[in-house]
Amino acid sequence: MEISELGEFGLIERLAKDIKTKNESTIKGIGDDCAILAPTEGMRTVVTTDLLMEGVHFDLTYVPLRHLGYKAVMVNLSDIFAMNARPKQLTVSLAISSKFKVEDIEEIYAGMRLACEKWGVDIVGGDTTASLTGLAISITAIGEARSEDLVLRSGAKPTDLICVSGNLGAAYMGLQLLEREKVIYNDQVEQARKSGSKEQMELLREAQPDFSGREYILERQLKPEARGDIIEALQKAGIHPTSMMDISDGLSSELMHICKQSQTGCRIYEERLPLDYQTAAMAEELNMNVSTCALNGGEDYELVFTVPLAMNDAVSALEDIRVIGYITEPEKGQALISRDGGEHELKAQGWNPLKS
Amino acid sequence: MEISELGEFGLIERLAKDIKTKNESTIKGIGDDCAILAPTEGMRTVVTTDLLMEGVHFDLTYVPLRHLGYKAVMVNLSDIFAMNARPKQLTVSLAISSKFKVEDIEEIYAGMRLACEKWGVDIVGGDTTASLTGLAISITAIGEARSEDLVLRSGAKPTDLICVSGNLGAAYMGLQLLEREKVIYNDQVEQARKSGSKEQMELLREAQPDFSGREYILERQLKPEARGDIIEALQKAGIHPTSMMDISDGLSSELMHICKQSQTGCRIYEERLPLDYQTAAMAEELNMNVSTCALNGGEDYELVFTVPLAMNDAVSALEDIRVIGYITEPEKGQALISRDGGEHELKAQGWNPLKS
Repeated sequence: MEISELGEFGLIERLAKDIKTKNESTIKGIGDDCAILAPTEGMRTVVTTDLLMEGVHFDLTYVPLRHLGYKAVMVNLSDIFAMNARPKQLTVSLAISSKFKVEDIEEIYAGMRLACEKWGVDIVGGDTTASLTGLAISITAIGEARSEDLVLRSGAKPTDLICVSGNLGAAYMGLQLLEREKVIYNDQVEQARKSGSKEQMELLREAQPDFSGREYILERQLKPEARGDIIEALQKAGIHPTSMMDISDGLSSELMHICKQSQTGCRIYEERLPLDYQTAAMAEELNMNVSTCALNGGEDYELVFTVPLAMNDAVSALEDIRVIGYITEPEKGQALISRDGGEHELKAQGWNPLKS
Repeated sequence: MEISELGEFGLIERLAKDIKTKNESTIKGIGDDCAILAPTEGMRTVVTTDLLMEGVHFDLTYVPLRHLGYKAVMVNLSDIFAMNARPKQLTVSLAISSKFKVEDIEEIYAGMRLACEKWGVDIVGGDTTASLTGLAISITAIGEARSEDLVLRSGAKPTDLICVSGNLGAAYMGLQLLEREKVIYNDQVEQARKSGSKEQMELLREAQPDFSGREYILERQLKPEARGDIIEALQKAGIHPTSMMDISDGLSSELMHICKQSQTGCRIYEERLPLDYQTAAMAEELNMNVSTCALNGGEDYELVFTVPLAMNDAVSALEDIRVIGYITEPEKGQALISRDGGEHELKAQGWNPLKS
């Protein structure tokens, strides 16, 4: 169905009918000039926002719309968890070009609802409008935490242990794989077009690249999970991080933020970087250094955090968390100790679309 | 200066240095995964968001960047005031194409800061990223109100008076004027190009259209003001509206929202529509019906609200507010009474970029 058949209000009505709010703190969702929230007494509110642009943050030639919606939400929830807070509400703005049908927008929303349901988050408002060019998605997420539970980037102290959840570099390897297959496919189409072979064109239209054995890195790229489970595990274990961030631009970049804002240095060990087998295999195949991918790949949406040295046993006992180094005095700088024992300055080559 | 010289973090640092937070409820602004707010105890939080796209919502050939920033903020504050709440914080996301320089972004921010300062609002976070095509601006505004002070769209009752602030149609007339001058200018450039006259091209480059006597309608289009002053005046006079909206898509469209959500009808009088002299003169010149412009023009950012009939004297005593009609039983429909006494069904032809 064409969006113009419904218009803005018709489209919003159609999308809103599947959206039910569940949080006690959500007094009124979609349908007025503003959403109305009742913050829990004595709690702090945390707010984060992200703007995703077609062609910069996602490529619709290989990203399914439902996954895109899911990821757009998870990326924001990840920022809420990184404060050691719990997400409660979010607003969604979409700018859509004329190539989109009503069903496309419903797919995006289906993915968003799925991500929201996973963490009990209410969609409480937004804006739906036209775009002359690509798709734009803007999400603002709102969460809550007790003041004393909040974890900033600035609380790391020398001797604190540096921990990361999950493994790193997988989403980046997934992206490399998708980009490679896109180039191959486009080349094949171009050749078929030149040769004028209708049969070949037909075959290509049906073709699906073989991604078997690569499912994990693809899923990490296309359908990342915000690590609310880690936040819950830390709370259960009584571990309060001294600093924390989510890893969106790459571990190196995030560690440099923590060190800068905590006025410390850091020392991490290459051999401690957590890697999945598929990440390593893909890096090998693409002739890339897997440690570089883990340090700078970005879009991991894992958590990097620091805990006091005394917490070593407690944090090491937790599943899916690894100690990769420790915080130092600022004059020691930010160092990576390579497998051969060499010391290298950590550099943030993280994803930075505004840097040439 | 090229944005690529600074990169994302450098640009954010540069923009953030001029941003000081002032509200007690702002605990931490820009610089972590989330902003941290301390909601005032016992107050409700209200949230609204808007996504503005180049070529759809604004045309950079005649909108100065500083005005654009100012307007982008005011549009959101207008939604907060329309709940009878006070704005406190906002987040700003920008997606910028390579044609923009650092100074351009600073201009947008200067306009945003100006609008924020006017109403004591803190910029507490955001996202700055690249766009392959045009500029995108996404703002989320957060405000506060006591639960009993909030005004929804759904509270209008039959016999309630319908009031509007300021005057209507001026911003739309300003837009028509700017669009007309753009067409004239482009035609002149085209002619000069065809004739090959360098002299004429030079003259055109320096040319400024004569807007004297049109300043008011231009200002209403380029630099609208959210009507927080009306909210303050109503509070001072002890008038609590039964329903309220801001007029962004046109009075007709907003009245239909109020009637739908309040399950009422309405009756408004053409002769009561508040018009500025410049609006009427411009409509005359363009051979447009000025009432249609006032009803459907949009971007007025005035307030439309309803008050109990008993408030007639109190509301009529206020400056810059006019009673234009009253709320009826739903079966009476939504009617406009024209100057000749004829009754017409109100239709929302408001600004709707998704409707063909």
